[in-house]
Amino acid sequence: MDYPTKTIENAVNELSRLPGVGKKSALRLALFLLKKNEQEVEDLANSLIKLKKDTKICTLCNNLSDNELCTICDSKSRDLSTLCIVEDSRDLIALEKTHQYNGLYHVLGGLINPMEGIGPSQLNIENLFNRIENQPVEEIIFALNATPEGETTSFYISRKIDKTKVKVTSIARGVPVGGELEFTDEITLARSLRNRTNYLNPITNNL
Amino acid sequence: MDYPTKTIENAVNELSRLPGVGKKSALRLALFLLKKNEQEVEDLANSLIKLKKDTKICTLCNNLSDNELCTICDSKSRDLSTLCIVEDSRDLIALEKTHQYNGLYHVLGGLINPMEGIGPSQLNIENLFNRIENQPVEEIIFALNATPEGETTSFYISRKIDKTKVKVTSIARGVPVGGELEFTDEITLARSLRNRTNYLNPITNNL
Repeated sequence: MDYPTKTIENAVNELSRLPGVGKKSALRLALFLLKKNEQEVEDLANSLIKLKKDTKICTLCNNLSDNELCTICDSKSRDLSTLCIVEDSRDLIALEKTHQYNGLYHVLGGLINPMEGIGPSQLNIENLFNRIENQPVEEIIFALNATPEGETTSFYISRKIDKTKVKVTSIARGVPVGGELEFTDEITLARSLRNRTNYLNPITNNL
Repeated sequence: MDYPTKTIENAVNELSRLPGVGKKSALRLALFLLKKNEQEVEDLANSLIKLKKDTKICTLCNNLSDNELCTICDSKSRDLSTLCIVEDSRDLIALEKTHQYNGLYHVLGGLINPMEGIGPSQLNIENLFNRIENQPVEEIIFALNATPEGETTSFYISRKIDKTKVKVTSIARGVPVGGELEFTDEITLARSLRNRTNYLNPITNNL
């Protein structure tokens, strides 16, 4: 046996199922936990069980939630006329951290990916059309990855709502703040040229 | 709040206490677990609780153990005349993986480190002297890190058992297998020259 005890081996096996955790880091984590007191290890373990047990999905936007509606959909202060389309809750969290957006979200739960057999019906897309029909949505903003899958998904959705009066926008693609032109790929650079903004007032554009 | 729910925030906080896990990786782990089914998350959580509850310390060598004696000290097939001195169980595990050593171990639980206020009395050193006195120990092998703390600890122990007949050795320091001379520091290179081995039979040396 490669580990001193069966219990350690079992914990290492469980921990090494986590993404980015190999057998060596799993052992390191296990030995770290062995140095903590019993209460601390139980707190960690219970937080994981509770995480899985208590986390629901928002029935409106598909975001992670404690209740039937997530805190964003349930909030009185959000702008109901804008929907930001994201792939998953992680992207939603990243956008929320900017504190720049006050509308609602719509979490697709993935992107259209024919190579992996993921079509629109496996994603939370039908619901989006329902929301656009039944709620006072004026603008949807695509905040999807700039990958073929992201582009395909944006294209599919935009075609489907072509006939509605909803304005369709996408987050800006360009050179990242702090990024160097020299190391930016040419597609990004071309887009950043085409979508150049007013220098003195970059926030306003002519949508 | 930066996270969709309190439960997620709590799990992220707990996970980010682990070594090498920041808030971002913690969130990644939490979202990964949310995609697993309840049983899988419980298996992970319970393996951690069990790890802490069931792991004991071997009363003889201080290794991690299920019982009063660890599997190594309890084994009938190990050579009782050799003790390998290691800093912690992680080093013991690394040595066991080589399948090259059939003696017993002695786990110090740390190294002498005056800067951090760690002296011999905080380590499992007194027990080592008892073992040397009461058991048929013929050789102790230092397998400690080649750091000032490792050297200090080896020196302290070797001075203390100076008058016994026990042979004291240390694992070889040299250029790692696969390593390049050009990139090896000069102290290691000097040691590898001084401790050169017989080319045709590198295992035998004149201890």
